[in-house]
Amino acid sequence: MKISARNLLKGKVLEITKGATTAHVKLDVAGTSVTASVTNEAVDELKLKVGQQAYAVIKASDVMIAVD
Amino acid sequence: MKISARNLLKGKVLEITKGATTAHVKLDVAGTSVTASVTNEAVDELKLKVGQQAYAVIKASDVMIAVD
Amino acid sequence: MKISARNLLKGKVLEITKGATTAHVKLDVAGTSVTASVTNEAVDELKLKVGQQAYAVIKASDVMIAVD
Amino acid sequence: MKISARNLLKGKVLEITKGATTAHVKLDVAGTSVTASVTNEAVDELKLKVGQQAYAVIKASDVMIAVD
Amino acid sequence: MKISARNLLKGKVLEITKGATTAHVKLDVAGTSVTASVTNEAVDELKLKVGQQAYAVIKASDVMIAVD
Amino acid sequence: MKISARNLLKGKVLEITKGATTAHVKLDVAGTSVTASVTNEAVDELKLKVGQQAYAVIKASDVMIAVD
Repeated sequence: MKISARNLLKGKVLEITKGATTAHVKLDVAGTSVTASVTNEAVDELKLKVGQQAYAVIKASDVMIAVD
Repeated sequence: MKISARNLLKGKVLEITKGATTAHVKLDVAGTSVTASVTNEAVDELKLKVGQQAYAVIKASDVMIAVD
Repeated sequence: MKISARNLLKGKVLEITKGATTAHVKLDVAGTSVTASVTNEAVDELKLKVGQQAYAVIKASDVMIAVD
Repeated sequence: MKISARNLLKGKVLEITKGATTAHVKLDVAGTSVTASVTNEAVDELKLKVGQQAYAVIKASDVMIAVD
Repeated sequence: MKISARNLLKGKVLEITKGATTAHVKLDVAGTSVTASVTNEAVDELKLKVGQQAYAVIKASDVMIAVD
Repeated sequence: MKISARNLLKGKVLEITKGATTAHVKLDVAGTSVTASVTNEAVDELKLKVGQQAYAVIKASDVMIAVD
């Protein structure tokens, strides 16, 4: 499956924290921590595990730009 | 100013493409291209220029996870 | 590739309208029109064509509920 | 009230799962399950109940396109 | 129609700028300018006009918090 | 740090409700309540407290327009 989302950042799962319905998944992407807030259900369905390779996927319209 | 958004990716502006109202800004983040879709107005106000340092800022709830 | 996004709606491309940077893609999903606003670049890269099968993909946190 | 969001998918509430602050609401939309992640507060205010008619409302800029 | 989105800010339309596909609508909300990026199609369908009353509608998961 | 997000609404923190992973922060913005759904981690890192001044930050592409 190919998707229109412009941003696909390859990383490694650092941490998975499940809440009551919402999970936070942290990836290490080239030395920077990237946090995703997804459903617990998605974590189960993808069988995400700490240490595995995964991608952060982000639609271009959800990216902001900041400068110092 | 400190912001709640969990993801701040440091990069360098590669390309700025202005449309009629919406601009696409590409950053090089650790060798990966990251595209942001923002208003032309924001590009002007931040005085974004190709080659400068900038950050991609992304709220955790806008990040998805994918696996191969 | 498997993705955490909870919503995958199968449809058929009805219409593709490219703007200066942003394209609108309409799918027919079970008789209802679904509009996606994506980059022109994504339309080109996916080689989207009117009439072909495609999916609308939506993160659960981007879905609101309304009642009459 | 009329809203700018382009996508209004009519369905029936299948399941409501409240978490500590965030609820997941599943609708059956023409035979496909659509999941929304909303606040518990919204579920209470709309008095959502399993079996009732409801709509999934999605802004066009939050819809991605995927192809096989 | 009642919607789950938690934020409904009443204002007055200050400016409408249509692009090729995407329009920017500015509202005056209690003296502060609020900008919405929506489809041209939505502007036409809602028959938005400068000077009229309108609301900015924002899902809670799209709001970030910043401090000085 | 300057950010591309077009909307910065100044307010005062009214209420902070932490869930298992996700917190809801309510601001009073010019007499209107604005709710943000953010990570618990962000609440801790920003040291948010009821009564303090804070801003709601919203990307233009996440704002919808509604009319009566």
